[in-house]
Amino acid sequence: MSFTLHPRLVADTTVVVDWTLSRVLLMNDKRFPWLILVPRRVGVSEIFDLDEPARVQLMTEIARAGEKLKSWAKSRGCGDKINVANIGNLVPQLHVHVVARGKGDPAWPGPVWGAGQALPYGAAELARIVGELRQAL
Amino acid sequence: MSFTLHPRLVADTTVVVDWTLSRVLLMNDKRFPWLILVPRRVGVSEIFDLDEPARVQLMTEIARAGEKLKSWAKSRGCGDKINVANIGNLVPQLHVHVVARGKGDPAWPGPVWGAGQALPYGAAELARIVGELRQAL
Repeated sequence: MSFTLHPRLVADTTVVVDWTLSRVLLMNDKRFPWLILVPRRVGVSEIFDLDEPARVQLMTEIARAGEKLKSWAKSRGCGDKINVANIGNLVPQLHVHVVARGKGDPAWPGPVWGAGQALPYGAAELARIVGELRQAL
Repeated sequence: MSFTLHPRLVADTTVVVDWTLSRVLLMNDKRFPWLILVPRRVGVSEIFDLDEPARVQLMTEIARAGEKLKSWAKSRGCGDKINVANIGNLVPQLHVHVVARGKGDPAWPGPVWGAGQALPYGAAELARIVGELRQAL
């Protein structure tokens, strides 16, 4: 069986780039700079379901995504802290949120998960942001 | 400067054990089996502030905590999913939540962060749970 994204992730995100392990997605919610890393492995739900080399690679990609996203978000005034999470209570496919938070954002200091409704990007804006992130990451 | 726990973490948790990198804490909230891993490093706020060997060790400890906590929680009927997160919007000291979730728990399927008020353990119960976790981890 080959890797495919969970339909909920397909619906909520746009693909930014494929890294060594993970497909990097942008959440379609302009309230927060919000990446999702999905290891391209089949049947994996928990971090500890990954073998050790994949776990190490995932950590490398989490650190890279966080550091690069924070720099990018700082130039937009919303790079005060990076939030990282694997929750997966509703979407069982292993995926890791990497979200840039700003002290003035709509959910600060609470978490973004379960905080109100997503505010989608416009089509042109989405294309521009994905292009910028491809450069930044 | 030597490592000390942030006062908020001291107030909300009990120490379970020290691992190679992290101090492992139990959140004093009986609604959820909830560990917090705090790398014993000074002045570190983001995962990517850790050097690479420490990041790899942190991933090893996250995987270990998650796998062992899930097994322990399953025997109590609340081991359906592990949630892992570094948020740190209020407590800048790097700390990683590792929480066992059950489909019948008070916040399911939402996140535990920001979900209602903590329900503290009684003193005897807390001592018993910490003892069990020392064995289980």
